[in-house]
Amino acid sequence: MRLFLSAGILYNVHMFQKIAFIGLGLIGGSLARAAREKFPSVWISAKTASSKTLAYAYDNGIIQGTPGSLAELVGDADLIILATPIELITAYVKQIYPLTKPGAIIIDTASTKQQIVTELKKYSDKFIGCHPMFGSEKTGIANSSAALLHGTRVAFTPYKNTPRGKLLAVMQFFKRLGCRPCKLGAKEHDAAVASISHIPYFGAVALLQLADDATKAALASTGFQSCTRVAESDPLWGVEVARSNRKEVLRHLKKLQRELSWIEQLIGRGDYKGLKEYLEFSRQIRRGIYR
Amino acid sequence: MRLFLSAGILYNVHMFQKIAFIGLGLIGGSLARAAREKFPSVWISAKTASSKTLAYAYDNGIIQGTPGSLAELVGDADLIILATPIELITAYVKQIYPLTKPGAIIIDTASTKQQIVTELKKYSDKFIGCHPMFGSEKTGIANSSAALLHGTRVAFTPYKNTPRGKLLAVMQFFKRLGCRPCKLGAKEHDAAVASISHIPYFGAVALLQLADDATKAALASTGFQSCTRVAESDPLWGVEVARSNRKEVLRHLKKLQRELSWIEQLIGRGDYKGLKEYLEFSRQIRRGIYR
Repeated sequence: MRLFLSAGILYNVHMFQKIAFIGLGLIGGSLARAAREKFPSVWISAKTASSKTLAYAYDNGIIQGTPGSLAELVGDADLIILATPIELITAYVKQIYPLTKPGAIIIDTASTKQQIVTELKKYSDKFIGCHPMFGSEKTGIANSSAALLHGTRVAFTPYKNTPRGKLLAVMQFFKRLGCRPCKLGAKEHDAAVASISHIPYFGAVALLQLADDATKAALASTGFQSCTRVAESDPLWGVEVARSNRKEVLRHLKKLQRELSWIEQLIGRGDYKGLKEYLEFSRQIRRGIYR
Repeated sequence: MRLFLSAGILYNVHMFQKIAFIGLGLIGGSLARAAREKFPSVWISAKTASSKTLAYAYDNGIIQGTPGSLAELVGDADLIILATPIELITAYVKQIYPLTKPGAIIIDTASTKQQIVTELKKYSDKFIGCHPMFGSEKTGIANSSAALLHGTRVAFTPYKNTPRGKLLAVMQFFKRLGCRPCKLGAKEHDAAVASISHIPYFGAVALLQLADDATKAALASTGFQSCTRVAESDPLWGVEVARSNRKEVLRHLKKLQRELSWIEQLIGRGDYKGLKEYLEFSRQIRRGIYR
């Protein structure tokens, strides 16, 4: 077992005996299922916006506790996971911070980090920005699954003064859940997810607007299906992303248009040699990522 | 058995006893395998650019004949399938037309149709434009498979004076191979494939240019993988498509940039209600196609 000493406390992956969730949708639900699977002795409790979700989680053995108040929920929790919509994160951290014990770790699951991390700077002894990068075009706890975590990235955006033992323990914890944790700066994170997650989504959405007629629909095949799969995501997620990562999304939307305009220019002037090089270069970028 | 009478000849799906291929890559190879599977008594012969491909096809029982000359290949063929690169199609049709019997049907497999169909108008008693809409990011006969055809569209772009019996027989033939044949105008076809196949490809290629750094590569997940899968296609295919469907590709590249610019405007002015409607509309378009 790996132990991490921090401020006189020994942290390790088995220290998370009590885990509290606020929010149990697709992300929270999947994390809870995975934690239960890998650490059967863990006690998981939760608070959710809908009582139906909470009942489902309890009835399906995903959680054991359904405390009445926030204080009861987080008071003796070792790890608190905020898996609510993005706009609720900062308020919840501020609210629960004084209710938690000193050794507690609070993480969120929001897909953009800069705004949240900046706003929560003074809670850095307990709060660590976290973005588990899995998902599905489906939503809700009924679609959650531990299998969704398999091999996916979990990005941490710690502060300079984040207790090192806490960071290492929580990263180790996610590793045990089958994920590939990594850490990076919040600004760097937001630029990266704009280009590899948010812009591909808006690109897919834009592509679909070009397919709005019966003939096109009839001819659309598996290639188009694959290109546009992410457009099945909840539009509310798209709005959240646009709002919380506005600057990077706008910057990368412009970049994508510039690339498309470049392709248009190459074809327009019949530079098929240049086009072939460009297409080949993109293929090499992809092979660098996925092979 | 369905029979189709045309110009005094009864056509049916079993009339294709001898099938000749020119070109046996991923597309030709898959069609040959499927034909052999569904019609075990059929005699398939082929001519390919590489002798290695021909040997592979013969050794693997995909074809039975390897005639020396084009005249031998097509002389008594009932169906001739041109599965060569797009730029060779028209020259081959002109060359083999006088060598074929009156009842023969010649089809191509090119992914753009207007140019080919226009240039081959006077061969309309035998030639029918055809686009089997399956594929893979892999190429070559070694990657071909009858399974690739399953449920895929095959678009026919017949002439006004295409013998009806021939068209119906060849459509029926593809139906028996597991495809979903349909017919439409060549111009309509090219506009449709620009938006549901060619532009999604160029879009994926452009997206990859935004992911050209180590952090982005490290964070890229299954969503990005799915969005960019088609960018693994052979760059030569991309050049072919740009060249042969130039007008529609350029028109739709502009359209995609307009859609992205519209998203940029919505986010730029903070119209999140408008954005949500736009995202929801795209999702509905997709559900109309795939559900």
